Amino acid sequence: MALPVSLVSSAQPAVATSALATHYQAVRAQSVALVLPLLPEDTVVQPNLDVSPPKWHLAHTTWFWETMLLKQFVPEYEVFHPEYAYLFNSYYNSLGSRVNRADRGTLSRPPLADVYRYRAYVDEHMAALLAKLAELPAAATELVELGLHHEQQHQELLATDIKYILSTNPLAPGYLTAAELASKSASAPTDGANFGASWLPVPGNIYPIGHQQEGFAFDNELPVHEVLVAPFELQNRLVTNGDFLQFIESGGYQQFQFWLGEGWDLVNREGWRAPLYWSQTADGQWLRYGPTGLAPLNPAAPVSHISFYEADAYAQWAGGRLPTEAEWEVAARHFGATAAGGNWLESGHFDPLPLPADADPTQCHQLLGDCWEWTYSPYHPYPGYQRAAGALGEYNGKFMINQLVLRGGSCATPESHIRLTYRNFFHADKRWQFTGLRLAR
Amino acid sequence: MALPVSLVSSAQPAVATSALATHYQAVRAQSVALVLPLLPEDTVVQPNLDVSPPKWHLAHTTWFWETMLLKQFVPEYEVFHPEYAYLFNSYYNSLGSRVNRADRGTLSRPPLADVYRYRAYVDEHMAALLAKLAELPAAATELVELGLHHEQQHQELLATDIKYILSTNPLAPGYLTAAELASKSASAPTDGANFGASWLPVPGNIYPIGHQQEGFAFDNELPVHEVLVAPFELQNRLVTNGDFLQFIESGGYQQFQFWLGEGWDLVNREGWRAPLYWSQTADGQWLRYGPTGLAPLNPAAPVSHISFYEADAYAQWAGGRLPTEAEWEVAARHFGATAAGGNWLESGHFDPLPLPADADPTQCHQLLGDCWEWTYSPYHPYPGYQRAAGALGEYNGKFMINQLVLRGGSCATPESHIRLTYRNFFHADKRWQFTGLRLAR
Amino acid sequence: MALPVSLVSSAQPAVATSALATHYQAVRAQSVALVLPLLPEDTVVQPNLDVSPPKWHLAHTTWFWETMLLKQFVPEYEVFHPEYAYLFNSYYNSLGSRVNRADRGTLSRPPLADVYRYRAYVDEHMAALLAKLAELPAAATELVELGLHHEQQHQELLATDIKYILSTNPLAPGYLTAAELASKSASAPTDGANFGASWLPVPGNIYPIGHQQEGFAFDNELPVHEVLVAPFELQNRLVTNGDFLQFIESGGYQQFQFWLGEGWDLVNREGWRAPLYWSQTADGQWLRYGPTGLAPLNPAAPVSHISFYEADAYAQWAGGRLPTEAEWEVAARHFGATAAGGNWLESGHFDPLPLPADADPTQCHQLLGDCWEWTYSPYHPYPGYQRAAGALGEYNGKFMINQLVLRGGSCATPESHIRLTYRNFFHADKRWQFTGLRLAR
Amino acid sequence: MALPVSLVSSAQPAVATSALATHYQAVRAQSVALVLPLLPEDTVVQPNLDVSPPKWHLAHTTWFWETMLLKQFVPEYEVFHPEYAYLFNSYYNSLGSRVNRADRGTLSRPPLADVYRYRAYVDEHMAALLAKLAELPAAATELVELGLHHEQQHQELLATDIKYILSTNPLAPGYLTAAELASKSASAPTDGANFGASWLPVPGNIYPIGHQQEGFAFDNELPVHEVLVAPFELQNRLVTNGDFLQFIESGGYQQFQFWLGEGWDLVNREGWRAPLYWSQTADGQWLRYGPTGLAPLNPAAPVSHISFYEADAYAQWAGGRLPTEAEWEVAARHFGATAAGGNWLESGHFDPLPLPADADPTQCHQLLGDCWEWTYSPYHPYPGYQRAAGALGEYNGKFMINQLVLRGGSCATPESHIRLTYRNFFHADKRWQFTGLRLAR
Repeated sequence: MALPVSLVSSAQPAVATSALATHYQAVRAQSVALVLPLLPEDTVVQPNLDVSPPKWHLAHTTWFWETMLLKQFVPEYEVFHPEYAYLFNSYYNSLGSRVNRADRGTLSRPPLADVYRYRAYVDEHMAALLAKLAELPAAATELVELGLHHEQQHQELLATDIKYILSTNPLAPGYLTAAELASKSASAPTDGANFGASWLPVPGNIYPIGHQQEGFAFDNELPVHEVLVAPFELQNRLVTNGDFLQFIESGGYQQFQFWLGEGWDLVNREGWRAPLYWSQTADGQWLRYGPTGLAPLNPAAPVSHISFYEADAYAQWAGGRLPTEAEWEVAARHFGATAAGGNWLESGHFDPLPLPADADPTQCHQLLGDCWEWTYSPYHPYPGYQRAAGALGEYNGKFMINQLVLRGGSCATPESHIRLTYRNFFHADKRWQFTGLRLAR
Repeated sequence: MALPVSLVSSAQPAVATSALATHYQAVRAQSVALVLPLLPEDTVVQPNLDVSPPKWHLAHTTWFWETMLLKQFVPEYEVFHPEYAYLFNSYYNSLGSRVNRADRGTLSRPPLADVYRYRAYVDEHMAALLAKLAELPAAATELVELGLHHEQQHQELLATDIKYILSTNPLAPGYLTAAELASKSASAPTDGANFGASWLPVPGNIYPIGHQQEGFAFDNELPVHEVLVAPFELQNRLVTNGDFLQFIESGGYQQFQFWLGEGWDLVNREGWRAPLYWSQTADGQWLRYGPTGLAPLNPAAPVSHISFYEADAYAQWAGGRLPTEAEWEVAARHFGATAAGGNWLESGHFDPLPLPADADPTQCHQLLGDCWEWTYSPYHPYPGYQRAAGALGEYNGKFMINQLVLRGGSCATPESHIRLTYRNFFHADKRWQFTGLRLAR
Repeated sequence: MALPVSLVSSAQPAVATSALATHYQAVRAQSVALVLPLLPEDTVVQPNLDVSPPKWHLAHTTWFWETMLLKQFVPEYEVFHPEYAYLFNSYYNSLGSRVNRADRGTLSRPPLADVYRYRAYVDEHMAALLAKLAELPAAATELVELGLHHEQQHQELLATDIKYILSTNPLAPGYLTAAELASKSASAPTDGANFGASWLPVPGNIYPIGHQQEGFAFDNELPVHEVLVAPFELQNRLVTNGDFLQFIESGGYQQFQFWLGEGWDLVNREGWRAPLYWSQTADGQWLRYGPTGLAPLNPAAPVSHISFYEADAYAQWAGGRLPTEAEWEVAARHFGATAAGGNWLESGHFDPLPLPADADPTQCHQLLGDCWEWTYSPYHPYPGYQRAAGALGEYNGKFMINQLVLRGGSCATPESHIRLTYRNFFHADKRWQFTGLRLAR
Repeated sequence: MALPVSLVSSAQPAVATSALATHYQAVRAQSVALVLPLLPEDTVVQPNLDVSPPKWHLAHTTWFWETMLLKQFVPEYEVFHPEYAYLFNSYYNSLGSRVNRADRGTLSRPPLADVYRYRAYVDEHMAALLAKLAELPAAATELVELGLHHEQQHQELLATDIKYILSTNPLAPGYLTAAELASKSASAPTDGANFGASWLPVPGNIYPIGHQQEGFAFDNELPVHEVLVAPFELQNRLVTNGDFLQFIESGGYQQFQFWLGEGWDLVNREGWRAPLYWSQTADGQWLRYGPTGLAPLNPAAPVSHISFYEADAYAQWAGGRLPTEAEWEVAARHFGATAAGGNWLESGHFDPLPLPADADPTQCHQLLGDCWEWTYSPYHPYPGYQRAAGALGEYNGKFMINQLVLRGGSCATPESHIRLTYRNFFHADKRWQFTGLRLAR
């Protein structure tokens, strides 16, 4: 993660204190809400190294508040438990030793009940701190904003990790029942299977890139800098499951010429033949694991849970390419993208939805809040970027190698966490996130 | 595991049917009793490949009854859940595919509550079966006996796996509180630190080896055969923590000449410097993880949780050797060992206890029910051994390579499961079981 | 590797046919010359996965000529040996299956003598082809140019792989004796230990990037495209061993805050404490493995054999940064870099040399022919880049992920193979190449 | 390896000094003779961890003489090279640190020529030592005998390692040409395809086991001790390729019930479908790699290059079992086995040959000098065995775990190295030795 702009720019906090306290409560409640449909057993396991147990997420986000705010700004604060800093530090070398990441799934203790007690204890002390936030240094307010965005990042991880945990179980349990899902998603778009893709032009120019507005941003979205972008075209919608199925059925996973070398090796080593969560029945029907368990594949929905390699191979096959990060940001501004359409998290969908049948094919859709869109740009520092000192310097800067930038936010990203300049990043082989693609040329 | 003798010898079942039904209830209740002090989260994790989640043990033992008895002898029986055979088969190739052993710790579902329902469902049907057991073929009674011993084997694994799971947690939680333990172990022996070791002679002769009595035995304890044993001496008690500490403090873990080559490589690769569960504080005090958590090392108690390599290196250092399997069995008969002294499982000790101060040093103690004693004998078939056909043929025979025989039973072995001819077996590097040693020469 | 420009642009070959034939002979002779100081045993081994046996390089480059030219343009051509295509294909999926890369070091056959016969056979047929090259399609001439550059690439790999092979031997044999080296390097620069670093400014502008001139280039240097570059400064010389020693002695390898996360993990996993080939004697003296074996470290020579992680950590420590690929190319043109100063390959140095004491500190030195300079730019396609069809499409394009661009050429790069627009690429953890760094800010 | 008996029993050396000197020359010459058909490149590679480069064997056996004899008994002796002790120590912790076994195949230096110089240097000094052996302590003579047997052990390894090295090469080069082989093996038995197997009885009794005669033996063949053996039957000949083919064709490698659990896992992990060195052409013909390269499988020859798991699975399938070590030794004495028939090493066969068509089916053949016969006995110490002090204590004793005893000697065992009490030992998964089986019941 990255430093808030205000820590860099020393601007005044943009959000009033009481609003922050309210927002704090809402964000904290949302983390718990995500875990409530689970059983205690579900919150402990770690089926692969990328996935963390939900209980760990609940505790780690709480440790973050305790460490960054309470221990720094409340002199008399006593930590809830002396060992929790060891248990729930994620990767901050500056904050001491910690449990090996690979061992998170072996930690049955503290029990989930104790983690909820931990959350309540910290929330109570945070409420006191927030009540007198105006008396504290400005850095405290900035760290509160950072903590909220940090917790929202983990909410997305909670969604994707829970999905992975449940999906790997041979029983393939759903996260919600069909009835629960239906009660939440009354506004789900209708089927849009025949919504065609078209190319929309974006003019070339020198464009400013990076966070230019009021409000919170991570340090990796700064500094604002100019980039020369040549004219290009972008598709009006994400690539769909139906599109991707054509790639599969034409033998896309068996033809090396579409693939980057490391991707081709991976596909063969892992035996990949389709995106994550897809499976094929004995009679050839494609199923897909989703919020209620296994269900028939919806060809109109955006393809998701694909690696960069699969996204790039699809683009090669389709005669297009992935956009660069700068192209994506320029296009998002050009087409007036806003976060208003997203927020599937609260509907419990945890799956990108198809466009409505009456969407305008001359408009650019789905830029924010459906899938993280792979770009062919490295997660490297913007020109002039400086890592912060101390623990916050480990939030974003140390990850700036061997990863690719993804843009746009997904159906699992909290709505208030989505913004146009947000730089998400993953290694090219990862597919447990809601990752999709949009063609450029 | 091994076939019951009766399946081999077609002898009549030794235990009356109603007694069997009662015993069934007691054994099944004991498995649950072992798990009751745990939280649901504790029952899911698998900190290494040898350890299985407690929930898995509860379900697997139940699957055994369902598969071996109910599906075979109750025509109208309907399985509790169609996927459980896949989830809870341990290693029976003849019974179909199954979850990879390494993935047992990723399975949060079925939840513990469902596993309890599964147990109740099977117990109900088993009660009906047991009520009319006399009407069924004799093989059914024999399989009931086998199932009971199978479940008792898993009770010992439950004890050792729970110990391992809790011990690896940085919080080092105890299985019981000190008060709970005290309430169970009123009869715990007093301190016996000064109880000396002495050598007891056993005459050479041709001896019969193997299960020769009435009652249940696994197929690997048969056939009875004769072995020529030369005269030897055995120590009157197990090697103690205090004895082993001398080995450590004299540099035993740093001197290759005491070690088998593969043991020496292992010690260095793993950085072993003491038995499992020992740790040393900054000021040099030795602690040991036990039923209530970390506690000072008791020098008078038998050393346990050591690998064969450590047992053998200790023997080399001490100028003795490990007994062979035949020597151990001959000595146990010679000294009149009985299982009466064991049964720590019900006291909740889960740790071998020292001899009382007034024990007779001219007698041989602790042969049954304190520690599994490593022998320097391979777990190979007895002359004339034949694997059974079908799934039962996979119980014991297929493991007869690269493992060593251990004899005697431990503090975690159910009392009615201990017998003089019992052949336990583990690989030379394992130490999460209650494994100790007794010197021969 | 990349396609020659001419294959893309259909320009006429820039080099006359007879000159090509002469150049062919010279290039082929140089590959053999590099191996001549070795023993047959040296040509077989593969001490790690990146390193290929010298015998393999000699055969693979020959296979390339056979496959790309003789089999395509000489109808009656008979391959030297039917199995060699399997043995000596490097990574071309389009050209069939091949020996696993990890097994190259197990192949004692064909013997070195047969590989020399293979070279002679192919050279003889190539001489005939080159004699009538004018009669063949233009693509043949272009493929000859490509083959020459391909062989020169492998000459650099021969140099670096031989160095690695000899260095890992506990006997640390030199590649040359001191006398042999002296006879070759009469013109070696004098000691330049006190040559100071200074910053040289480069103005910002929109600059064209990529191969814009006559002559050969790989396809990855194209298309020419414009990039907006902000004003920046570059150091006048490479970072030296003496500079780097200060980083080491100040604890640079022990302080996480200078390191990218994946680099920090690597440093600790591998126990890195200095660049590759450095070692420290018991009394603290730093030695370095070079062309004649171990020798005292020369503080004035450029540091080489460092990973991207070490280059970046040094830059963080020194308060600078690595340049981008575009900055480097713009600076090289701005400062008028030419390849004239390089060519250490023929002197047998295989080590970058210090600047002469009378070098002008206001000039930018060492841009070409000393060390490959790590940039903080990904090896991604230039805008508009298209992979070629067929085997040549696998030369460069499929590697465009997870690697970083290095610029400038090294002391092991053949002089005629160095050019300003050349994009070399390696993974961030690699250090067996002559890789160094130059600071920007 | 094991201590010579004389070191244990302080008996007088059985061989006169001048005869020893002659034998020394013959043995040393044989090691070189084995390597002479190879190219220098062949002597360097190590295609898997069990296999050592031939050059290493030549140097290691020389290091043994230097270390055990010359450095101990020749005060003024100067080692040939100070680093060779590091390079060519195999596994003696008491003799200092050494090259990691996995890295033996990366050591191109010292070159083969230097190793020959090393051999000549040591042979010259050994000649002087042997000339005055009578003046030295008796231990010197005993160590000479040990050294000779040590070198003969490595001759067998040279044969098996060379076979493996050449066989893994895609060119499948032969060790000898067909003409060279023919010139050596004039006395090769004729085809014996129809020679039937029959069962020969051996009476039960108490038998002495271990080395009971004059002459050299390793310490692991001692002490002589008595074993009670029940009556059993043994087959008159080894299992043949033809026999084993029936197992394969009946689906033996696909049916778990014949296999030990660890063997079944291995078979599936490695994809084994036949013994090592067997391959099947597209039209179903079985080939086998032998001394002249690939050749049609000879169904009459003993099956070799099988693991213990394959031997045991075959026995299970065939309704027999493997003999124990004691049974084998008792039978060999009972049937009057001598080493006279072996010695294929000098004929260059490196492959067990079929029995002649006129062999007597009522006799027991092939007990010595065809295949090492897997027994179902652990390589554990005989009762009363004591490891020697010092480096010799590492020769045999430290390997006495997790390996099985093989008896009889193979076609690659030097004739004077074969004896009836010899205990060879390998892990159950190994198959690069000449390992076969004979059924018992």
